[in-house]
Amino acid sequence: MIDLLSDTVTPPTQEMRQAMFSAEVGDSGYGEDPTVNRLESLAAEMLGKEGAAFMPSGCQGNLAALLAHCPRGHEVIVGDRSDLYDFEAGSVSALGGLVLHPVATEPDGRLLLDNLRSAIRDKGDYQCAPAGVIVLENPHCQLGGRVLPVSYIKEVRALADERDLPLHLDGARIFNAAVALRRAPAEMAEDVDSIMFSLSKGLAAPFGSMVCGTRAFIERVKRNRKLLGGGLRQAGIMASAGIVALQTMVSRLAEDHRRAQLLADRIRAIPGIRLEPSVIETNMVFFRVEWNDLSIPEFLAALSQQGVRMGTLREGVVRAVLHYLISDAEVDAAAQAIRSVLQAENR
Amino acid sequence: MIDLLSDTVTPPTQEMRQAMFSAEVGDSGYGEDPTVNRLESLAAEMLGKEGAAFMPSGCQGNLAALLAHCPRGHEVIVGDRSDLYDFEAGSVSALGGLVLHPVATEPDGRLLLDNLRSAIRDKGDYQCAPAGVIVLENPHCQLGGRVLPVSYIKEVRALADERDLPLHLDGARIFNAAVALRRAPAEMAEDVDSIMFSLSKGLAAPFGSMVCGTRAFIERVKRNRKLLGGGLRQAGIMASAGIVALQTMVSRLAEDHRRAQLLADRIRAIPGIRLEPSVIETNMVFFRVEWNDLSIPEFLAALSQQGVRMGTLREGVVRAVLHYLISDAEVDAAAQAIRSVLQAENR
Amino acid sequence: MIDLLSDTVTPPTQEMRQAMFSAEVGDSGYGEDPTVNRLESLAAEMLGKEGAAFMPSGCQGNLAALLAHCPRGHEVIVGDRSDLYDFEAGSVSALGGLVLHPVATEPDGRLLLDNLRSAIRDKGDYQCAPAGVIVLENPHCQLGGRVLPVSYIKEVRALADERDLPLHLDGARIFNAAVALRRAPAEMAEDVDSIMFSLSKGLAAPFGSMVCGTRAFIERVKRNRKLLGGGLRQAGIMASAGIVALQTMVSRLAEDHRRAQLLADRIRAIPGIRLEPSVIETNMVFFRVEWNDLSIPEFLAALSQQGVRMGTLREGVVRAVLHYLISDAEVDAAAQAIRSVLQAENR
Amino acid sequence: MIDLLSDTVTPPTQEMRQAMFSAEVGDSGYGEDPTVNRLESLAAEMLGKEGAAFMPSGCQGNLAALLAHCPRGHEVIVGDRSDLYDFEAGSVSALGGLVLHPVATEPDGRLLLDNLRSAIRDKGDYQCAPAGVIVLENPHCQLGGRVLPVSYIKEVRALADERDLPLHLDGARIFNAAVALRRAPAEMAEDVDSIMFSLSKGLAAPFGSMVCGTRAFIERVKRNRKLLGGGLRQAGIMASAGIVALQTMVSRLAEDHRRAQLLADRIRAIPGIRLEPSVIETNMVFFRVEWNDLSIPEFLAALSQQGVRMGTLREGVVRAVLHYLISDAEVDAAAQAIRSVLQAENR
Repeated sequence: MIDLLSDTVTPPTQEMRQAMFSAEVGDSGYGEDPTVNRLESLAAEMLGKEGAAFMPSGCQGNLAALLAHCPRGHEVIVGDRSDLYDFEAGSVSALGGLVLHPVATEPDGRLLLDNLRSAIRDKGDYQCAPAGVIVLENPHCQLGGRVLPVSYIKEVRALADERDLPLHLDGARIFNAAVALRRAPAEMAEDVDSIMFSLSKGLAAPFGSMVCGTRAFIERVKRNRKLLGGGLRQAGIMASAGIVALQTMVSRLAEDHRRAQLLADRIRAIPGIRLEPSVIETNMVFFRVEWNDLSIPEFLAALSQQGVRMGTLREGVVRAVLHYLISDAEVDAAAQAIRSVLQAENR
Repeated sequence: MIDLLSDTVTPPTQEMRQAMFSAEVGDSGYGEDPTVNRLESLAAEMLGKEGAAFMPSGCQGNLAALLAHCPRGHEVIVGDRSDLYDFEAGSVSALGGLVLHPVATEPDGRLLLDNLRSAIRDKGDYQCAPAGVIVLENPHCQLGGRVLPVSYIKEVRALADERDLPLHLDGARIFNAAVALRRAPAEMAEDVDSIMFSLSKGLAAPFGSMVCGTRAFIERVKRNRKLLGGGLRQAGIMASAGIVALQTMVSRLAEDHRRAQLLADRIRAIPGIRLEPSVIETNMVFFRVEWNDLSIPEFLAALSQQGVRMGTLREGVVRAVLHYLISDAEVDAAAQAIRSVLQAENR
Repeated sequence: MIDLLSDTVTPPTQEMRQAMFSAEVGDSGYGEDPTVNRLESLAAEMLGKEGAAFMPSGCQGNLAALLAHCPRGHEVIVGDRSDLYDFEAGSVSALGGLVLHPVATEPDGRLLLDNLRSAIRDKGDYQCAPAGVIVLENPHCQLGGRVLPVSYIKEVRALADERDLPLHLDGARIFNAAVALRRAPAEMAEDVDSIMFSLSKGLAAPFGSMVCGTRAFIERVKRNRKLLGGGLRQAGIMASAGIVALQTMVSRLAEDHRRAQLLADRIRAIPGIRLEPSVIETNMVFFRVEWNDLSIPEFLAALSQQGVRMGTLREGVVRAVLHYLISDAEVDAAAQAIRSVLQAENR
Repeated sequence: MIDLLSDTVTPPTQEMRQAMFSAEVGDSGYGEDPTVNRLESLAAEMLGKEGAAFMPSGCQGNLAALLAHCPRGHEVIVGDRSDLYDFEAGSVSALGGLVLHPVATEPDGRLLLDNLRSAIRDKGDYQCAPAGVIVLENPHCQLGGRVLPVSYIKEVRALADERDLPLHLDGARIFNAAVALRRAPAEMAEDVDSIMFSLSKGLAAPFGSMVCGTRAFIERVKRNRKLLGGGLRQAGIMASAGIVALQTMVSRLAEDHRRAQLLADRIRAIPGIRLEPSVIETNMVFFRVEWNDLSIPEFLAALSQQGVRMGTLREGVVRAVLHYLISDAEVDAAAQAIRSVLQAENR
């Protein structure tokens, strides 16, 4: 099976398995796991922040970070197509007493400054929940892995400063954005107060995410981590895979991007396929299938018959995600499979 | 001052003051206030529901009702221009662990069925907060007092049934809608599981709202009322005014509607004034002021100089609300004041 | 019926009804109700605090105050026999994300300093919810209306200062305590950061409570009040009764205390009756009925047959509460009714 | 260093490291991790329940289970010396809107039936938070690893049935209890609706806990797990260690118990040492140091100088915990170290 469902399906590399096998561990409940401490230092340094916290998942990373930014009853201003709004079960409201305030998302993942401005409610009016934090997502997952321009983030930073609000970045795949823009990861986080990124996904660690920010903020995040049940014991086992992920898997993301481009090029001209977006910036290819009455589930099933797995994140749109296990030949095979499915349908 | 800021500014009528003066009371903490019990029966009967609960405010009414409908972590699907979403401080999330899911609102206050449908997230997907309740607002306050057609509500009811969801109506001014459509109040609530309406606003009771629904639901609402600190002692004092409101103030709302129409007609032709919406269905008139660079605050200040108070609920739009203290002559005077302000500006 | 169930059963006085009848009101949603503003000034002044907020109930007063003191996840250290712990539905946890930490209560209502000290958990330990506030109750309702010595409150104040914690007083009946100690109300609140007291109960307003504290704190309380649905419209109607309560009903509480003492003296010697506590400090008399197998419900039912209503707050203990409608003759009659019930049983 | 601080300090065994190295994994976000599925089946079977969920920590296991049992605003009736009450940061209240209701704990870890009974508040009284669940802890950590008799759990079960309440067991070290009583683990869970147990601690997996219960309950737990950010990707890595833990580390716990007994016997007679409790049932030894003015921190520091680490969980009491890395010789050495410290002090 050529598995393009998501980059979350990636198993750990052999080097990670080896690192886990021989990881030095301690009880991180007592702050005594040296490997966790090393990973946290490494992440903080790479992202240019004072501190970092190792979290079991990206959901918990975002949740702990937003709880650390906002008191009860404040609003989380966030894109209406964001992973945080759509796929984290509303946890900031369900558990944390925060109010979700979605803002329309542009096709390239930006939230227009004017829309952000009008989403910030009047602090003096008791009828309105006060704004607590602005959240951006980069690259933007549901909109095809689009990368936010650094200049745009600086504009949002200026707005946040003007309104005295913290700015959090859901950077689950931030290294894809950095590689796409040929910038250092720290530059991607320079204008935000905090960032969450995943060690799994394209970096292929079995699981775990990092939250980075100021030292004081990270203290609050770690307290929230305990509260949420994310305080682990010999977490160094997992952290060791995270260190390998950061040290060996970042620069190779360019390969995934090249192959996403390759896949897009291969299928762009197939009748019935419409890329959306048509520009490929990172490791994802999204496309519509406009062919007779073929539904997305039917298309995916037929593709699966051909030994190719893709998925869908939005109604009517297929998603293919490239990752370290997929070769050029498999990209070709996947493109060929799409072509076959549509031709078969046409008969 | 001709006060058209809101119908919430209405003081109680003399008959209400008299009723409060002589109200029979008991300790409603022990369920022993006969006047509260009478009001609850009356409200339930008028709205065609099994039971009713007397609440100190509409905010608490909506909040207690939604908590009674939804377990922790469920979504409240609600219009993005609704009072509940914009002016109740996010309380269902801040206090109740519910997730707000705003849906685009049509200019006439409807939430399109397709939009509702796609707002109901996949119950089986743990990544998504499950839908808990659909909320409509009728008449729609921020969009100019527009009334939802009964046929539309029936369509939403069908969708709610199909998806096994309760339907709640924020009917703060439901009697305005009933009077506008010349229907019995009970018809307005026929297709919803629960309704909240205000005794203050156009009905002029000093404060208080009612929530109506099934007996079992009302039990849960009353428990939530206690939890929220809305369990009052000799609440019969206030309830007595509420009874007078229901008995004497409902049919006269037609007067307010006629005068809203009158005001609209008077100002429609004034250069620089654009009604929005142009159709007047209940007791509100919304308009834009398109005149030189006159800002809304400046316009309101100038109007106030002329002895007329209006307000604003949305950027760039002035709102005038009719109520029982405003006569035809005052409507004329208000229209004249608008004309003077714009002429003065023009000089 | 001689109703000694509670002082919450008190209907408003004629003077209150008159005040409500002629109360000047405004829309307190816009901060425009002059009578509410007057009541808040009066309460703040009487309690010696910078500001005050008019709340619909004592439950909401305590809840809004504790939410204003404590961020999410902090502990409310409170007596295990307190009204807040037993009879406010756990609302600080249910709605506010605060953690209740009950401490053993002495028979006189005090929480021992050592117990308070060990209830304050280690702030540095992420496993422990950090302390957020200490709460005292004065007079202590469930333990018979016992009054806390001012010197004791000063000791708790010192501890609170030492641990950098705010101190809140549930002073629902604080004027009873002040009258019992012959002190000014402000002296009773001198050592606490905030106090809640009721306008109903012994003061006989139909409902409503006040929270007093610093100006900044009261702003937060008012925001919480809106959140909880306690923001009322023409609240001046009720506030006018509250003003009368504060102006006319405070000093007469001494009468209730004298009559509570009288009732205690009348029944102390009746075989089968054991006062608990035996000392009467305010307007309550608590006693056990140790007579054959007469259960409390049976005793209360028999008493009711005799035209006297009492209640129970703790297993095995009857409570009688004196208030402005009860005369010396009725105290005698109540004592006689108790005697009759026990004699009848004895036959 | 002879590390007796806790059994949470245990690193994974070589067999676990080997299992992790070669673990078959999948994306458990999509339910596709075969090793996680195997572990969940194994745990359910061993505990005699329909289903099980793999959780990152015991804190999250308890939290997700209690949220699955109780709607918002219900009470968690729990021992006042329990791990859940003291060391889980109040998370059920902080995040879940549940109310903690601590009950006095007997020296052997039991909560007396009468105390449980009076902690269950009147369901019909809106002033009281309704009971939601009863929680027991077995073995009882803070009270020295005491094991609850099966007959006692059956009594609590009967009470729970009578009051229609679920019964949850915090069985973090349930295998220690099973081994101590020479019973099958399933017998230990027979009378409870749900159980949480740890794969780390004595079983030495690097981290992770299991929650077991009915199929429907486990579905709710898994939804809560996602909400709390405990949904992991290639969790099979960790699950593989958990399988080894269950297969190889359970029966050897008897060794730890024998050594705990040995340590107790060695130090029982040392002047200045008082065992508390004096009976050793599982793998923990608790003792007071009554020697001059030697404080616990001083004692622990001196012990550490001798190469032995112990800790403290309650004021004035030292705790030593046995685990798989500690040999008989090390127990002797630890006892000797204690003796030396006290003798040195005595000089």
